[in-house]
Amino acid sequence: MRKLRMGMVGGGEGAFIGAVHRMAAALDGNIELVCGCFSADAERSKRSGRGLYLADERIYTDYQQMMRAEAALPATLRMDFVAIVTPNFMHLPVALAALAAGFHVLSDKPATMSVVEAKVLREAVAASGLSYGLTHPYIGYPLVQEARRRVAAGELGAIRRVVVEYHQGWLAGEVGGNKQADWRTDPSRAGISCAMGDIGVHAFNLAETVLGQQVSELCADLSTMVAGRTLDDDGNVLLRFEGGARGVLMASQIAVGEENALRLRVYGECAALEWCQEEPNSLWLKSNEQPAQRIRSGWAGGDTGLESLQRTPAGHPEGYIEAFANIYQQFAAAIGGQSVPQQAALAGIEEGLRGMAFIETVVAASASDRKWHPLRID
Amino acid sequence: MRKLRMGMVGGGEGAFIGAVHRMAAALDGNIELVCGCFSADAERSKRSGRGLYLADERIYTDYQQMMRAEAALPATLRMDFVAIVTPNFMHLPVALAALAAGFHVLSDKPATMSVVEAKVLREAVAASGLSYGLTHPYIGYPLVQEARRRVAAGELGAIRRVVVEYHQGWLAGEVGGNKQADWRTDPSRAGISCAMGDIGVHAFNLAETVLGQQVSELCADLSTMVAGRTLDDDGNVLLRFEGGARGVLMASQIAVGEENALRLRVYGECAALEWCQEEPNSLWLKSNEQPAQRIRSGWAGGDTGLESLQRTPAGHPEGYIEAFANIYQQFAAAIGGQSVPQQAALAGIEEGLRGMAFIETVVAASASDRKWHPLRID
Amino acid sequence: MRKLRMGMVGGGEGAFIGAVHRMAAALDGNIELVCGCFSADAERSKRSGRGLYLADERIYTDYQQMMRAEAALPATLRMDFVAIVTPNFMHLPVALAALAAGFHVLSDKPATMSVVEAKVLREAVAASGLSYGLTHPYIGYPLVQEARRRVAAGELGAIRRVVVEYHQGWLAGEVGGNKQADWRTDPSRAGISCAMGDIGVHAFNLAETVLGQQVSELCADLSTMVAGRTLDDDGNVLLRFEGGARGVLMASQIAVGEENALRLRVYGECAALEWCQEEPNSLWLKSNEQPAQRIRSGWAGGDTGLESLQRTPAGHPEGYIEAFANIYQQFAAAIGGQSVPQQAALAGIEEGLRGMAFIETVVAASASDRKWHPLRID
Amino acid sequence: MRKLRMGMVGGGEGAFIGAVHRMAAALDGNIELVCGCFSADAERSKRSGRGLYLADERIYTDYQQMMRAEAALPATLRMDFVAIVTPNFMHLPVALAALAAGFHVLSDKPATMSVVEAKVLREAVAASGLSYGLTHPYIGYPLVQEARRRVAAGELGAIRRVVVEYHQGWLAGEVGGNKQADWRTDPSRAGISCAMGDIGVHAFNLAETVLGQQVSELCADLSTMVAGRTLDDDGNVLLRFEGGARGVLMASQIAVGEENALRLRVYGECAALEWCQEEPNSLWLKSNEQPAQRIRSGWAGGDTGLESLQRTPAGHPEGYIEAFANIYQQFAAAIGGQSVPQQAALAGIEEGLRGMAFIETVVAASASDRKWHPLRID
Repeated sequence: MRKLRMGMVGGGEGAFIGAVHRMAAALDGNIELVCGCFSADAERSKRSGRGLYLADERIYTDYQQMMRAEAALPATLRMDFVAIVTPNFMHLPVALAALAAGFHVLSDKPATMSVVEAKVLREAVAASGLSYGLTHPYIGYPLVQEARRRVAAGELGAIRRVVVEYHQGWLAGEVGGNKQADWRTDPSRAGISCAMGDIGVHAFNLAETVLGQQVSELCADLSTMVAGRTLDDDGNVLLRFEGGARGVLMASQIAVGEENALRLRVYGECAALEWCQEEPNSLWLKSNEQPAQRIRSGWAGGDTGLESLQRTPAGHPEGYIEAFANIYQQFAAAIGGQSVPQQAALAGIEEGLRGMAFIETVVAASASDRKWHPLRID
Repeated sequence: MRKLRMGMVGGGEGAFIGAVHRMAAALDGNIELVCGCFSADAERSKRSGRGLYLADERIYTDYQQMMRAEAALPATLRMDFVAIVTPNFMHLPVALAALAAGFHVLSDKPATMSVVEAKVLREAVAASGLSYGLTHPYIGYPLVQEARRRVAAGELGAIRRVVVEYHQGWLAGEVGGNKQADWRTDPSRAGISCAMGDIGVHAFNLAETVLGQQVSELCADLSTMVAGRTLDDDGNVLLRFEGGARGVLMASQIAVGEENALRLRVYGECAALEWCQEEPNSLWLKSNEQPAQRIRSGWAGGDTGLESLQRTPAGHPEGYIEAFANIYQQFAAAIGGQSVPQQAALAGIEEGLRGMAFIETVVAASASDRKWHPLRID
Repeated sequence: MRKLRMGMVGGGEGAFIGAVHRMAAALDGNIELVCGCFSADAERSKRSGRGLYLADERIYTDYQQMMRAEAALPATLRMDFVAIVTPNFMHLPVALAALAAGFHVLSDKPATMSVVEAKVLREAVAASGLSYGLTHPYIGYPLVQEARRRVAAGELGAIRRVVVEYHQGWLAGEVGGNKQADWRTDPSRAGISCAMGDIGVHAFNLAETVLGQQVSELCADLSTMVAGRTLDDDGNVLLRFEGGARGVLMASQIAVGEENALRLRVYGECAALEWCQEEPNSLWLKSNEQPAQRIRSGWAGGDTGLESLQRTPAGHPEGYIEAFANIYQQFAAAIGGQSVPQQAALAGIEEGLRGMAFIETVVAASASDRKWHPLRID
Repeated sequence: MRKLRMGMVGGGEGAFIGAVHRMAAALDGNIELVCGCFSADAERSKRSGRGLYLADERIYTDYQQMMRAEAALPATLRMDFVAIVTPNFMHLPVALAALAAGFHVLSDKPATMSVVEAKVLREAVAASGLSYGLTHPYIGYPLVQEARRRVAAGELGAIRRVVVEYHQGWLAGEVGGNKQADWRTDPSRAGISCAMGDIGVHAFNLAETVLGQQVSELCADLSTMVAGRTLDDDGNVLLRFEGGARGVLMASQIAVGEENALRLRVYGECAALEWCQEEPNSLWLKSNEQPAQRIRSGWAGGDTGLESLQRTPAGHPEGYIEAFANIYQQFAAAIGGQSVPQQAALAGIEEGLRGMAFIETVVAASASDRKWHPLRID
């Protein structure tokens, strides 16, 4: 029994999501960071790697060279998988290089820059026989998985109505000089959408994951509220699900004063569920017959397997990093050959492809005079 | 100085909204119920009126006869205005009869059954020189008026995004035998829409009132989720406002487990406001620069005039009946020649016409393949 | 069938609680104000009465004269009961005069200025054969009565722990010139306690009412935090109940930033209840075995009789005035010979006496070096 | 630059707090677990250590032998500090052994079993010249430190009133067979108090830390609500602070339905703060002049140094493990010679001694007929 060895591409000094990935990987003590290519700038990559206690020979400047060098190391030393935490446009090439060199991949979302790219990646994953995971961290929250379990078990009856929203305010003004904002609003690095591509896709993934069914068609209205931007910073989408449910998806980054307000409401024939990421340790179950129930994480709900997603007893708040770590643990179990909680969902290349199709369909639908647009992957 | 004298049409035994109107009228002690036509059934009208301490000669069975009889009474006795609390299809004929007989009208919403009818009513009101008020009670909440005041004062900057929703669950199942449900789901008595006509129009009025601007076009998707119904019981609408803001309006009566969840969020360039009818004594003000502020009713905010909408100090919850009573007080002030708080909005025939246009446009838009439909009153 | 006729002593222009009593009495349409002695100042009383649409001959300046004059009126005109809304020191003399003249009494709390006075009043009530009600409005909230019903039904098991608190902030600074503050901090008009006498006694009444058992002994620490005051403006009390439960009662008027935060938590062997006056339409039921349940007013809980305390469906917030009106309705039913909901508690002279004993015991206990002091009425 | 090396005593399979310590230590990637004595049972210790990826030669069965063996290792290998996560009665002997062998100590609370023991430990720490930290994790929350900063900066004015409470329900029934419950209710392992010793002392530490002043005297009422127990499972304490503030401390483990409800309210002359551990990412600032403000973790409040306690942007919930990790980071900085945020409080032996004095004083006060008892360390 040994720790899994992780390499990282991206996530140098000042990066947000790279540090989150490292904390998520470290939390449970069974994954260690052994190498990384943190920046294409040699000095910056070196400084970043040393700050992470890596030996100089495991700090790389070129991700392709990293794949070759790691593959050449003895099995007792070389990394087991690579975490990709670069800006969006680099997700595909790094993933392809890693798979080609025989490494499992855990990639930040979105999977690629387009549906076409995602199909390329899907083929590469299939051909490699390796594992590919996509970090949609919000579905790593225990109560999101609990919501999914209850929907799947039929507790809500047939689903009729879905409202999923993701409101942020940080792009409400000019944010010049903010590194996080810069690449997200730049089509060459972020892709064809900002708000929908960055956060709308999380909302979409959350809804499809909890419902266990797919959006069949949609109608969209994207906006660019801040002058000078090319991409959308706000948008609203009408949804129709294959099972007959209807609903709304909202994503905005100009909702001034909002922090990270991802919220899902699912109404079935018999009962409804409501969950909000900013208070992630409560899940509301509502019906017309009983008082609303506040289901809490850390519940002692028996043999669902989901209790393994929780690290502390009820009343000890767990949050974003723990949810993210659940993604890492499930990925680690998958590549380590260990069993994962049967109920727990982990996003992979199929979900990545769905996400890209969502983004492209929404952008096309918004530009169209026609109301409904199928969300289909050919 | 004397109390205003109110007559009522509709609102007999077992009616919901009639009793609310009476409590709202009675609360502040300056309006007295003096007569009524509570039902077309003579016995039922009689029993209802006696239960309200009315003398037999002021209890009517025929609203037209009531108008004639009251008009014939000496000025010191006859009613000053009539409150209309019938099912929707009776709103217009009763209002026309009252205006023709010289009585001010305070009508439950919607104003009429159609835009065509609403235009007829608008002409009748104009010709009469009398006052016509429409009870959209939710805009009677002090903090809704406070929100409107702040938007008008420019505290939020230009408005960019609006989310208004009205979720109820009581029509999620079969509700046979429920008198309230019966007429609302019956086109001949409710009109062409159930959810949008009954509650969506409140959400619409709330949004236009707080914003102080109009919806210019919309895109709609209405659903009938419960088998056997003719009218919509659920719907989602994309909104565009004349000032450039965009947003979403949701109205559902099959959102199981929800009670009366009317909620408004308005995001401007600088700040946002959020208000929820089920916790009406708090109004949230958010921005990117400051911690969120919870503005409370009973605030001592000085010379805005709005403090007159509040009856008790902060911390003494006021609710639906008090909001409704504010509508009555403003109407009473208008017909009594007294001044009303300058800032306070009261819905009249113009808002009634807007409401009918909203309902008709939403229904037409939902049936159309075209995305956008102007909301225009010719 | 006729309306009940109410007279009022106190509550002239600018008074807070008098206006609340009038709204509470008016809300349900079955009580009418027919006379009043609103001030010892003749002009002020006259102006107040005229503002309430009273005829001049029913506006009095001297409450004793009012009792005589009303008693001399024919039964078809004279008042049925008197509402006493003066500062505390006048409660006893007005009540005695009313009872002596044959009128039922509904008095604002506290019943009197002392235990000795309360015993005098108890005897007078008993001797008169008339009804005496005390307005502890908070127990008029439907969910407080629902909490009481559940405790009485044994749903919580034996009660072990009680936390009741009443936090206000309005006396945190100097409040010179505030009429409400003036008399409350003046021993000659308020009695021997400010915070405990004004609000602590509500918390005490709430706890004993919901528990259906009495405090047997207590330990107290009262403070005067604002320099220059004679009376307490803050205090904490350890409680022991006759049934073995223990707990804490807190009352403070210098809890800056708090509005009217009366909150009760009751923990039994099996379950707990929590209710907060500022969000009065929710009652929390908690246990170790089930998710917490949010019981809502307007619940359809069947044949408990308590549904009559609610005027609108769930989701239509009701508040302080409606709770106060429930007290009026129960009192009206009692004196009108009508049945009241069996479960609903109404405070009377016994509760008034308990309240006075609480105040005196707390003040004595605070001054003592001994820890425990029995709360006993000899 | 290298990682700090941690040893652990206690925390074998099935232990709760040991796992939390390990996650807290691992989160930020700069501390590695290198050895441990996880149980006095050799097999169990071995299994536990191997599960943590330790080499067999660094897994010990005897903590004294561990100290000797580690001290004998070369400086490049041996541990830097030891984390003590045993039941209470072992805290002192392990700490003394570690200090004697030259190792810094980070101990779970309480520091020892008694004041006498704590004084012994204080002398040993002083004599050793080594660092001693005590894990009161709740003061590791960013917003607790922010509260402390604001109090210290005088934003609240002089403090008048403190309410600190810690409600749990998990010991409400018989919990036979629960390992966590077993030792906590056993005087030989837990000490002279259960509820006050286990959680009351956290509340006490939280209050003294945020206020930056000490409790000068107290009055206590402890209860044993579940039959058959020797120690208290519930208690209430009246507090007086050296600066004149008064207040209440509550601690209960029979508050059925409560999870881990640690909550602090501090009222000053000008403003008040409120924080609750179960929603740790919000801190409420209230006053009489302004709307209540919800200060959020992840605030961009400038140069306070406290932003380093937060790992993600606002809206990404952080919780108990992150707070615990902040304690580890501060301890690591202290022993590593790095600077810590100036404002951030870390509990040490003085706080440990205060805690023991609190427990002993509360127990003695509860048994006494005298009201007030000084909380003094001679």
